[in-house]
Formats: sequence, structure tokens, C-alpha cells
Amino acid sequence: MAAEPRSANSAAVATIRTLVVDMTSTAKSGHPGAPMGLAAVAHVLWTKIMRYDPTDPGWINRDRFVLSNGHACALQYIMLHLTGYNISIEDLTNHCKLDSITPGHPERLLTPGVEVTTGPLGQGLANGVGLAMAQAHLAKEFNKPDCRIFDNYTYVICGDGCLMEGISSEACSLAGHLGLNRLIVLYDDNHSSIDGPTELAFTEDRCARFRAFGWHTIVVPNASEDFEGVERAIREAHTITDRPVFIDCQTIIGYGSVNQGTAEVHGKPLQDDDVKNVKRKFGFDPDKTFFVPEVVQKEYRAATLRGRERHDRWRDIFHHYQASYPREAGELDRRMRGALPDGWREGLPTWTYSKDGDEATRTSSGKILNALARTLPELVGGAADLTPSTFTKLDVSDDVTREGMQNRYIRFGVREHAMVAICNGLAAYGGIIPFCASFLNFIEYCFPAVRLAAMSHHQQIILMTHDSIGLGEDGPTHQAVEAITTCRATPNVLTIRPADGNETAGAYIAALQNKNGPTVMCLTRQKVPQIQNSSAAKSLMGAYIVREAANPSLIIVASGSEVAPALEAAEDEALHTERVRVVSMPCWSLFEEQSVGYRREVFPPGVPVIAVEAAAPTGWERYSHYAIGMRTFGASAPAKDVFKKFNFTGPAIARICRDYTARHIETMKRMGVTDNACFAPLPTVLYAWS
Amino acid sequence: MAAEPRSANSAAVATIRTLVVDMTSTAKSGHPGAPMGLAAVAHVLWTKIMRYDPTDPGWINRDRFVLSNGHACALQYIMLHLTGYNISIEDLTNHCKLDSITPGHPERLLTPGVEVTTGPLGQGLANGVGLAMAQAHLAKEFNKPDCRIFDNYTYVICGDGCLMEGISSEACSLAGHLGLNRLIVLYDDNHSSIDGPTELAFTEDRCARFRAFGWHTIVVPNASEDFEGVERAIREAHTITDRPVFIDCQTIIGYGSVNQGTAEVHGKPLQDDDVKNVKRKFGFDPDKTFFVPEVVQKEYRAATLRGRERHDRWRDIFHHYQASYPREAGELDRRMRGALPDGWREGLPTWTYSKDGDEATRTSSGKILNALARTLPELVGGAADLTPSTFTKLDVSDDVTREGMQNRYIRFGVREHAMVAICNGLAAYGGIIPFCASFLNFIEYCFPAVRLAAMSHHQQIILMTHDSIGLGEDGPTHQAVEAITTCRATPNVLTIRPADGNETAGAYIAALQNKNGPTVMCLTRQKVPQIQNSSAAKSLMGAYIVREAANPSLIIVASGSEVAPALEAAEDEALHTERVRVVSMPCWSLFEEQSVGYRREVFPPGVPVIAVEAAAPTGWERYSHYAIGMRTFGASAPAKDVFKKFNFTGPAIARICRDYTARHIETMKRMGVTDNACFAPLPTVLYAWS
Repeated sequence: MAAEPRSANSAAVATIRTLVVDMTSTAKSGHPGAPMGLAAVAHVLWTKIMRYDPTDPGWINRDRFVLSNGHACALQYIMLHLTGYNISIEDLTNHCKLDSITPGHPERLLTPGVEVTTGPLGQGLANGVGLAMAQAHLAKEFNKPDCRIFDNYTYVICGDGCLMEGISSEACSLAGHLGLNRLIVLYDDNHSSIDGPTELAFTEDRCARFRAFGWHTIVVPNASEDFEGVERAIREAHTITDRPVFIDCQTIIGYGSVNQGTAEVHGKPLQDDDVKNVKRKFGFDPDKTFFVPEVVQKEYRAATLRGRERHDRWRDIFHHYQASYPREAGELDRRMRGALPDGWREGLPTWTYSKDGDEATRTSSGKILNALARTLPELVGGAADLTPSTFTKLDVSDDVTREGMQNRYIRFGVREHAMVAICNGLAAYGGIIPFCASFLNFIEYCFPAVRLAAMSHHQQIILMTHDSIGLGEDGPTHQAVEAITTCRATPNVLTIRPADGNETAGAYIAALQNKNGPTVMCLTRQKVPQIQNSSAAKSLMGAYIVREAANPSLIIVASGSEVAPALEAAEDEALHTERVRVVSMPCWSLFEEQSVGYRREVFPPGVPVIAVEAAAPTGWERYSHYAIGMRTFGASAPAKDVFKKFNFTGPAIARICRDYTARHIETMKRMGVTDNACFAPLPTVLYAWS
Repeated sequence: MAAEPRSANSAAVATIRTLVVDMTSTAKSGHPGAPMGLAAVAHVLWTKIMRYDPTDPGWINRDRFVLSNGHACALQYIMLHLTGYNISIEDLTNHCKLDSITPGHPERLLTPGVEVTTGPLGQGLANGVGLAMAQAHLAKEFNKPDCRIFDNYTYVICGDGCLMEGISSEACSLAGHLGLNRLIVLYDDNHSSIDGPTELAFTEDRCARFRAFGWHTIVVPNASEDFEGVERAIREAHTITDRPVFIDCQTIIGYGSVNQGTAEVHGKPLQDDDVKNVKRKFGFDPDKTFFVPEVVQKEYRAATLRGRERHDRWRDIFHHYQASYPREAGELDRRMRGALPDGWREGLPTWTYSKDGDEATRTSSGKILNALARTLPELVGGAADLTPSTFTKLDVSDDVTREGMQNRYIRFGVREHAMVAICNGLAAYGGIIPFCASFLNFIEYCFPAVRLAAMSHHQQIILMTHDSIGLGEDGPTHQAVEAITTCRATPNVLTIRPADGNETAGAYIAALQNKNGPTVMCLTRQKVPQIQNSSAAKSLMGAYIVREAANPSLIIVASGSEVAPALEAAEDEALHTERVRVVSMPCWSLFEEQSVGYRREVFPPGVPVIAVEAAAPTGWERYSHYAIGMRTFGASAPAKDVFKKFNFTGPAIARICRDYTARHIETMKRMGVTDNACFAPLPTVLYAWS
């Protein structure tokens, strides 16, 4: 391979490659291989294809770019730098350093121009499907025959890993089903994975798989060098108007390195002499680092200028839109800002203890969701083929289909993982508050995407019904035990388990106000009674007293479907000598946001607290001296039999409370601990955790 | 559709369908649709095709059957009943009742003849890939030219849901790659899912997808009626010797019901009049329930007899094998019993505090794994394309490949979910102790399979390296925070986070002795020092003292990479007035198995305990008054910078311990709590949880 001629294109690609080498060498970390192989693809995308304006990374009709193989982030940072986003050469030199804006994988909250956080493989591709769905949806909703304000494309670069991960099959099958024709995936087919050649594990026919999904496929045989071929393929993709397009870009990993084409260059910086070799090979001074030739700067300035001009032309269209369609423009503005309309809460149903009968919280949820959907057109979502079980169907809307992208109800199919990742994409696009649904146990099928929602501050409402052994007959394979613990342990996942209709309404209020992360709502399959003294407002405190006892001698704290049996226990014969307070605690994290005073009021020091929840007890030690929970998996039987088997009935709870406190006091006495110190104040209740 | 002629075949299929109707109606729960549609397929499988012997469900060369769409379990129970497994008509009537052996989804621990627990969709299909891999592996290892003791097939029935779930793409891509020619998947293509027609969400070309994966595909257009067609397809599948086979069985869900062909019949019993209608239609007395005509009983007795005869013929072969190859036969016997060979621990490496340098526990793990692999040929496994990072490559074996199925190192590709589910299949087959590996954060990609391993008591060793923010530069997308909490909260997942080489050896001993469930080992990417006083034996207690202080005034308990900074903290200036004990706690559940006496000895009542772990603190409240943990996601930077940022250094830990205890004592004083009751005994340490 000889030094390339200094055309602007080849100079640019050489520059990208040498910057990659410098970034990873300076960081003493990172992944040079994929960025070097992809340099030509990226150069074509950013200079010939994509519409963007670095001076306004939030332009709502910008093309969306997703780097699904997030480990190739050096490439993305370099392109953002070259095109004039607010990323300096210094930022490139700080790659993988503490508090830099160029971390080891792209994070949307850190770096201007990064649309979604990627790295866990396959997620970005599914996000891309969500971004393309959002585009199609908003285009159908807001575009006018004379004003096309949404017509952007979504471009995704992904690698072998993304395609091996099951989530990509889920998402791409759905994308094909919906015929998302503004979604273009560029597959970095570099024949190399971490273990070695992809032939070790990945010999399927990728293009055939994507055609089976209903995609159009194109192969670019020499995509590390053939700019024209890459550009031609993307232009061909633009002509495909009925389906998404998969472009197999056959690249050479680590292009330019002495180890190019091997796994050697995947995950660590090049050797020092190879760094110099690469620079020499591309006609660069081997001793210069982070060098961008003037010809390249010029090329990118021109590209950026073209982007700004396109943005200006779009602005003209949008001004026309504002003038001709002021109502729609106002609504669009509100939605893109993420503001809720005045009076959005007004239609919320309420439940009355004395009047309303038993009702599953999934049923209450269905009523609330539908009430909200009437005033909040930004609510768009669906279920993973559990619509009749999760009660998520929207009365106000038909299904999202190939021809009906303006609709708001999504049939995700049995694809939980893609569902949540697609919702991340919908949220990232803007103007949409996504919701999705399955059984709580199956949040484990999609948790990596929930985690990314939390890390990336994507608002979405995750409705998880059938939330415990209370689902009954389906048995332990479907009965969540540890799932709620996982949600609570994960930073920034608002986890709410309401006890009745009013608390479910409270959960929705919290979810809609929780703009910076996902809310997981745990809802019952089985009917539960309306709780006396429950209210949406009080439930927003996270925990509150539903049965008062002056100077309580025992506190039972419960959540969801166990609040009712806890209240029964309080009345039980076995506890007739106790003054029992019952606390409903739908949400730990909301409670932890309350004042120390309020927290102490709910859990006064020195009073024994026993928690009741039909889930793993892990973590309840924070609020209670003992927890009645699930220490095994559940069982298949009618719900009431399963509840009885595992002691979640009023009498069983009362008996355990009585036995536990007696036994504890006795043991403490033997240890010389005085009565009123037996139940030491729980530290958390008194202090903030941080 | 007229009443069918009373041939044995059609009588049998009618019987299966009416039994399905009776089971689900009696249970007032369950899924009649799929079993009714699949009756002909099942009848052909159990009477014409499969080799099994109900008098010995553990026959090692039996054909393996997996019902991946586990909700169709009524079908499986009925077939097991008809063929003479230990499932009575009474058991069928107890479907979904408490403590029955016919739960709402098949559970291998409950029901004779159920190979794997299914229900969470896609898992069974991936288990099937594992069962077929195990067969191919053991056949290559143990078969002799004159004695083919392993030649069984694996048959999987799956539904639309299984195919939509990403895990099935992962597993089936790998199955195609390996050319597993004794794997036959029968796809219940019934055009119906819970939401309605599959066209709502699932329009991809399934057969084309499987061909892209390297499978042979066959379509049976009328599989609810055409016995011959089903049988012909399976016989064709038997002739395919270089790849797995996917048979698209086009069925009619709820065949016989007035609602056949619709989602109506999927997930709830038929209406009473429809129950009678079905029976009438098939020529049965509408008022009789659970009726099996004599002709059908005879047919199945004959089938079972043929199975026993085949088993007898196999026994002859095996006796010849035992006589001719006594060493191999003995070894096979040992392995199928799950017994470890004498002296298996002897080759385990040890580490010496004063001599051995810092070493990542993933590195120690690699040494131990390889030492064990030399004496334990049953160790078979690999990594999800992270071999060079997880140090799991076996020196003693080449890769498992199409031609090298006797090998023991599996290149799973970037397919964590299929990996663990395949390992469940390997374990279910017997004779293999599977291991697998990825980064701890990505256990979330495979957790549904980990959960099923725990529920089904599948032994497997799950090596999760890069177990915290200590992985450094890759950043928060890759840094586990809540993952270890999830593992600990899940029943029967032995979760171990060793601090150094010796504790890692202890973790392997525990994992190999943990015959009835998965062991998750959390291992560092970064180097950690060898701990003075650490030992494999002591680490098996779950927690033990690594730094003693007579009459301690403060206990710091830590796990994994935080034990070393905890020890540093104990020596720090900030704690010079304290008598600091340091406890290393690699495993909660092993500790909870110890005597109350031992637990009290480690954590004496009244002494403040502070936990240190670079993970979510959730649950540490069980053992500590305060936990230094991760309350946010991590950060991308060199490991030491990240550890510093999040306070996991000796000085920071010391300072927090000092400040916390002072503040706590002061607050308690203000509340009138006397000194020695300030730090109430932690209840768990004193009592067993149960």
C-alpha cells in the first residue's frame, strides 16, 4: 500500500486514521481498529451525505447518527471535531481521562452531537430503529403537503457484535415489518472480532438474514478505500422507499497498521513503531501528533457550511409552517421542549375506598394511561405481545403500521429487549414520551436497555404487570422475585409499586414528571382492594401512613398487593396487644428525597419495623428490622393459594410479626440490650445516604 | 370439519385435543390453543419418531425433547402421560394446582420426562442447541467405531414468540455455524400471537432467516392434520447430515374450537359449550372428561414398548462398550453421575502473600480454570467473544468446531444470552460442567438464562470479569453497578466476589461443589494484591477476618478488589484511635450457611460495621450499619482515577468511617440512646433468615 495521493478525500481519511492512532495512544486505551477501517465510510457520511449543523446540535430535522459499535468512539469524536461541534483537539487528547467529554464509549449526556449512549452491543442499532420510527411518526403527524419539516434519515454504523446480539434481530425484524425507509445501517464487515476472525463463531449470511427481515441489502466490497462505492451505496439506499437498507461495508480493521485485518488492532493502542508506520504510510510526519492538514480543515469547513445552508433552508420551511399552521407549530414546540400541556392531570381518574371495588392495578393503569393519552398526544408505545394482559391498548389510536405511522400504539412483538431500546430511540428523537409493557419478570429480558435509559436520562414509562407470585397459575418461570430489587439497585430508575388505583395514578404523575430517566411501574395481575387513606398525592412522598396508631409499638411497611394483607394483619388477633402502624411504601427513591423530619415521622426511631413484599427481601433491611419476602422462587397455583403458601396473608403476617418481635426482644435481653434500644433506629431513615 | 374416522392416529390426536381442553378447563387456566394445534406433530413425534423409555427417563441416549413454547405444557404432560411416564390422569386434573407435578409451565425438577424448564420464550430453543452440542461432544469423545453409545436427536417445538426473541437468533446462528445435524426444530407456525394475528408484528420470512443461519428448512403446510406430512418432514430431516433442520409446521391454533385460528384460544380455557363442541366434533362423549379410548391406549403402549426395545438394544451396545472399553465406560459413568474424580483439587494453584505479586483475579481465574481443566475433562465452555479479556482459553483443548466437536473450548460469539442458555442445555444433558464468561455488566444480557439455571438446578460456572468501575477506561456503559445485587437477590445463584488468588481458588471449589445451581464469579480486570491471611478454605465460610483487632471498635467488611483498600484504611491515620477489624466477605450466601456462633464471632454485636464494595450498596444493610458503594453509574478514566473519584481508596474509606461513626454516635446521643446500643446488633447476623 503506497502513500496515497493528496486528494482532499484521501487526505481526510488519512487524517482520521492518524487521529485515531494518536487518540488511543495518548489514552493508552481504546479501540483503534474499527475507526481506522471505517474512516472512509465516516468521511463520506459526514461530507457527502448527512444533514447536520454543528452550531445547533438540537436541530430537530438533523440526520441522526448512531455508532452502535460504540467502542469505535474515537471515530465519532474525530468526526464531531472535524465538522465543528464543540469538541476540541484537547478533548481528543483527553480521551478516556477523568471528566473528559470523550469517554471510552459515547455518552449522550457528555458529548455534543452524540445522539445515544452506545457500547453495550446491539443497543445502538435498536435505538436507530426507534429514531427512525420517531421520525416517521412525527413526519406523518406534523408534515403538511406544502411543508415537510421532518424528513431526516437515521444512519447507524454497527459491527459484527451488534449483529450477533439478539437485540439486533428483534429490532431489525420490526424495522423491516414497519418498512422504515429512512433507516440506513452501515455494517462494518471487518471479518474480525475480539477472539479472532469472525469465522470462529459468525458464519451466517448476514445480508440474507436482513433480506429475510424485509430489508434491502447492498454490498460495498472495498469500503475502507472506495469512497465512491460507499457514496453510491448510500445514494442507492436513498432511492429505496419501502424498506430499510442494510449496507454491508467490507472493511479492513486497523487499515494502515502493520497488523491490519487482525484482532490485534481491535482493543488496544498500536505499538509505538506502528504509530509512526501508519503516519509515514499516509504521508504524515511521524513525529507530529493530532495533526489536521489545512486541506482537510477546508474540506470539513465546506461540509459544515453546506450543513448550515441546509439548516437555513429548513428554517425557511419551518417559518412558513409556523405562519401557516400556528396550532401545530405551537404543539410541536411544546412537545420538543418536553413540556406537559396545562391541565394534563385533570382527566386522571380517582378511586374511593368506600365505593370502588377490588381492581388489579394493571386495570387501573389501563384506565389512567387511556385518560392521559387523550390529553398527551406524545404518549406513544405498546407492549411486547401482551396487550390484552397489560391493558395498554390506547382507545384513542390505531396501531402503528407501515401505512399508519401517525398512530400511537406499537405492536412490538415478543421482543422486550428491542422494545425498551426502541423506546430509548423514540425518547432520544424528542417530542415523544414512550411507554412499553410486559410482565415484571421479563424486565430481565430488556434490562440492559433499561439501564441505558437510566444512564442516558431517557424518559420512558415501563409498565410491568403480573408483578409477583400473585400472577398465580403461570408459575415460577413467570413470577418476578429479584426483578424489583434490580430496578431499585440501579441508579436513576424510578421504581414504583402502587397498592391501588390512587397510588397507580400517583405513579403516572411521578413518571410523567420524571423527565430524566425511566420509570418502572410494577402492577398486579390480581385484583387488590382500594386502600383507605390512599391517595395519589401522598404516594408521591414514596411512603406514607395508611393506618395510624398513636405511639406505635410496631410498624408494618408494605408495597403493592401486600399493603392490603398488611392492613389485615394489623387487625389480627395475634397483634391485639400491639399498636400497629401500617405504612404503604410504593417507592423507595421518592421517600429518600423527603426531609429527614418526614422520614422520622413515618418511621420513628426505636419502633420495630417489619417489611412485607412478595419479592426478594434484599434491600428492605434499609427500612426494616425484618422482611417477609421471597427467599425462593414461587409456585404455580391460583394466586390466593400461592400467597398463602408464602405467608402473604393477614394472619400469617401477624403471626410472623408477633414471633419475630418477641424473639428479638428476648435475644437482646440475653445480650444485655435494654428494651428501648432493641430496635435500633435504622440509620438510613435518619440520614441521607449520600 | 367432520368427525374424523377412528383410525388410531386420528383417535389419538382427538384424544390429545380433548385432554387439553379438559386440563385447561379443570385448571380454569392455561393455554389450550397451541397444544390443540400441535397435537398431530406431538403424536407423530412420540409414536413414530422419538426414542425414549418411560421406565428410565434418565437413559443417557434418549432423544431429548424441549417444548420451547412452554405455555403449551398441557401437550407435554399429556404425551408423558400417554407414553407411560409417571404422570397420572389425576396429575393432569391437577394442572396449575399447588404442589402438582403439572405446573403452568414445564419445570424439570417437578415432572419426570421434562428435560428443561421452559416458558420464558426462546430459552428452550437455546437449551435445545446446548443439548445437541452436548450430544455431539460426548459422541465424539466416547463413541467408538464399533459402539455408538451417543446418537440421540434433540427435538424442539417452538412458537412465534420463541422466534421473535433475540436469544433464538443468537442460538440458532451458532447452531448453524456448528452444523448441529441432530437438532430438529419444529416451529408451530400458527399465525397467532397473544395480541392477534402474527401479521401485527412478525412478517419476516422465517425459513429464509434460518437458511441464512445455515439451516436446512422444510415446510409442512397442514401440520395440524397431515400426520404423514409431519413424519415425512422429520424423516427428511434425519437425512440431512451437515446442518440443523427447521421444520415450519403450519398449524391451526386451537384446532377444533369454534375460535380456532384466532388469538381467542391462546391463553385461556375454552368456553363450556365450546368444550362440548370440540368433543362432539372429534366423536367423543361431550359429558366425559379426561377420556382416553382403548385404541389410543393401545397405540401408545405399543409405542412405549418399541422405545423399551430400542433401549434394550442400546443396553446391549453399552454392555459391549463396558466390556471393550472399561476405562471410558468408568469415566462416562463418573461424569454422568456428576461425581468429581479423586484428587481433583490437588493441582489447584495457591498464592503467597509475601511472595506473589499483584494479579487481577481474572488472571488467577485463568490459571485455576486451566489447572482444573487438566483433571476435569467435563469442564467445557468458553466466552462471548471475550476470550483474551476473560482469560478463559483452555490450554488443553482446541476450539469446538463443526469438525472438532470433541474439543472443549466454545467460541460463543457476542451472544451472552444464548451462551448461558446453551450452558443450561449442556448441563441438562449430563456429563458436562459448563463454564462461560463475559464482563459482569453484561450478565444483564443473559440474566433470564441465569435465573432459569438457578430455578432448574443447572450447575454452571459463570465467570464475569471486569466486575466494577475498576475496569476503568471503557466507562460506565461497561461498569457493573447493580449486577451483583441482582445475582445476590436471585434465589439459588451462588455469587462470589473473591479478593485475590486464593479466594478465587476457593470460589472455584465452591462452584464445583455447587451441583445444584449456577455460580457467578465476579472477577477484576485490574490487578489486586494478594491478601495476608487469605485462604481458599477460609473464603468458603463466606466471610472471615483478614485483619484482627482484639475487642474491635470498628469492623470494615469488603469484597473483591475493595478488601485491599479496606486494609489500607485500617492502617490510616484517620482511624488511629480505633481498633479496626477487616472482614473479607466474598460470598453472602455461604456466610449465611454458617453457624450463628461463627457469624457472631465475625460480626460481634454492638460494633459498628461499615461495608465497602464498588457496587450498588443495596442489601449491604443486612450486614453493615453503613455502606460505601456506588449510588451513581461510574466514569471513564484509568481505574485508579475512578477508584479515587468514588472514594474506594484507603484514606477515603478511613475518613468516611471516622466521620460516619462520629456522626452516628452524636445523633444517637441526642436521641438518648446509650453508647453501647448505638450500633444495634444486626438482626441477620444473629438469626437465620428463614
